[in-house]
Amino acid sequence: MKIAILGYGTVGRGVDQIVAGVEDIEVVRILDLPDRCVEGRMTPDYGLIVDDPQIEVVVECMGGLEPAHTFIMGALEAGKSVVTSNKAVVAAFFDEFARTATAHGASLLIEATCGGGIPWIASIEKVRRIDEIPSLSGIMNGTTNFIVDAMIKGGADFGETLARAQELGYAEADPSADIDGIDVRNKTVIAVGVAFDTACTPDIPVTGIRTLTKAYLDLFAAHGRTVKLLGRAVQGGGRYAAVVEPVALPSRSLEANVPSNFNIMSLEGSTVGPLKFYGQGAGSLPTGNAMVQDLLDYRAGRRPAYDLSRGLAYDPALLTDDYVLCTSAPAPEGAVAYDEGAWLLRDVTASQARELFEAALAQDPASFVAALPQED
Amino acid sequence: MKIAILGYGTVGRGVDQIVAGVEDIEVVRILDLPDRCVEGRMTPDYGLIVDDPQIEVVVECMGGLEPAHTFIMGALEAGKSVVTSNKAVVAAFFDEFARTATAHGASLLIEATCGGGIPWIASIEKVRRIDEIPSLSGIMNGTTNFIVDAMIKGGADFGETLARAQELGYAEADPSADIDGIDVRNKTVIAVGVAFDTACTPDIPVTGIRTLTKAYLDLFAAHGRTVKLLGRAVQGGGRYAAVVEPVALPSRSLEANVPSNFNIMSLEGSTVGPLKFYGQGAGSLPTGNAMVQDLLDYRAGRRPAYDLSRGLAYDPALLTDDYVLCTSAPAPEGAVAYDEGAWLLRDVTASQARELFEAALAQDPASFVAALPQED
Repeated sequence: MKIAILGYGTVGRGVDQIVAGVEDIEVVRILDLPDRCVEGRMTPDYGLIVDDPQIEVVVECMGGLEPAHTFIMGALEAGKSVVTSNKAVVAAFFDEFARTATAHGASLLIEATCGGGIPWIASIEKVRRIDEIPSLSGIMNGTTNFIVDAMIKGGADFGETLARAQELGYAEADPSADIDGIDVRNKTVIAVGVAFDTACTPDIPVTGIRTLTKAYLDLFAAHGRTVKLLGRAVQGGGRYAAVVEPVALPSRSLEANVPSNFNIMSLEGSTVGPLKFYGQGAGSLPTGNAMVQDLLDYRAGRRPAYDLSRGLAYDPALLTDDYVLCTSAPAPEGAVAYDEGAWLLRDVTASQARELFEAALAQDPASFVAALPQED
Repeated sequence: MKIAILGYGTVGRGVDQIVAGVEDIEVVRILDLPDRCVEGRMTPDYGLIVDDPQIEVVVECMGGLEPAHTFIMGALEAGKSVVTSNKAVVAAFFDEFARTATAHGASLLIEATCGGGIPWIASIEKVRRIDEIPSLSGIMNGTTNFIVDAMIKGGADFGETLARAQELGYAEADPSADIDGIDVRNKTVIAVGVAFDTACTPDIPVTGIRTLTKAYLDLFAAHGRTVKLLGRAVQGGGRYAAVVEPVALPSRSLEANVPSNFNIMSLEGSTVGPLKFYGQGAGSLPTGNAMVQDLLDYRAGRRPAYDLSRGLAYDPALLTDDYVLCTSAPAPEGAVAYDEGAWLLRDVTASQARELFEAALAQDPASFVAALPQED
């Protein structure tokens, strides 16, 4: 089977390296910028790939919305299947890609968009052969987990820890997509599509960890809680809801003990019960591994066909929890004291919590909010 | 696809219930004892199943060595594929079953033998499409995890907690297979076969938790450790080793925080890195789910073919760790004090630790031993 790789950065190189050890899959073209084309397979001309009938699968590892969107659409319209690690473009165009793939007899394979080497998308699909999935959640971003874990274990504050993550290559020079929760939102939107057959709105409440401090972590630790950035989604009765936000988890929960830059994803199946999947959520070889697993699945005849037309209605009331708002702004109506400078809000929706947090931020830019789920 | 179920206990009923909701798979026969055959599909005569050409797959949920071994061999020799949840019989006859399946064009599907609904066997096979697996481990027994977790959280001692587990149906009337580590040994032997292509010797060091007390748990907790019963296996350089034993894990590790009767299984892949899989390791619907997943895989064309002829040599030196031996017997040579009545043994093999433990038990039947892996 002949394939092309689009983009020869960290992930593209990982794919190339792993494919070299796999029989019957050959990288015949690599798309990169003109000044980076240093070997015979490389070209800056996408036409040489999309118009080449011998190339069966295009492996997109460029990232970003354009030209990735145009190149993926071009491949699918040419009847070529696409393996991609690009969470941003799949979250933004999942329904369009899925419809185009189906219309042209091509497949869209997206394991590497969520959780690096963790078999999360394939596991959702496998579970759904038998079960409905009423809920899913996860630590889906290694950068923010690394920062929180290092702050707890090392005692340094947010800015210093972020700088260390950048030095180690765990965080980008512009860390916004990670620390503001956008990356987790994209992965949550994709998981909702796969698990709920619904084109998830991008307009879900999203709160990151930009205002997290060591003092807030200590405050929650004194209550037996550990803060983690989670993506969560639920469905039921023809409705669904999703959220990205810090959650103050019981310190003895599995999620609270996920170290360093690892990820963990959870789902609930109607007969199988809870399942959790843990591993490296990023990196050249783990993400490359996920893409080569997609290639091997494709070669073995797996043809995932996503249909996001179920049309569940978005209902914020499905995600209701207690929240703790840490702020020097006046307490919201109905709040009770949780700790010094921290207010407990009972039974509010994730959307209401986000609104209250925004109002607090306007008065105190150092405010922080976290959901406070009940202990099992 | 027409199938038969052997044994209509907890798991057999789970399979029947789940298959009822799956298209194109029909349970046409159920084997049970004569006085339990209360509906038209049921028969006490295995001949009616093994000689029925319309039955393509036999789903064995009887447990125990005989007649399960004879029935599985009969089915495979008749060219019928076998789905089984029976860890004891697969651990004892894995190589014979695998050879017979291959010789007769049948398949052996064993997801449900390890970890109930957790996709552990299929995940090992998937990882191995790309990676070598140098090591694997896991909390593979829900009964003992329930007992340890309840002792830690509730404060009751071993006997009382075991009795509660029996009341809840988490432990058998004769709990030996669970608390003495035999069940974990069987699952470890199976995982070694799938991951290392080797017929694992049953003669690995096996230590259970029969002598665990609340006092020992408190002793380890004071050192920041939580005791769990683990199965572990490693390979390298044409050799392998495996062990079942209590391990005193760092209390902030994932494994230390697995609650109740849940299981977690881990592997290390050469490119994907560490992967962990968590879920319900037993129960009617989770285990039934694993068997129906095997049926759906089979129907989709998956034909696992196990070849255990790689012949790795067993080398105890591959599993070397520090150990803590709690005993009122005299300290072994070279031991240093770990705590009151507890001795630290540095760099001993699992086999040596088992021998030292047996020697201590002979003098103090209340002795206890646990591996003490270094913190990451």
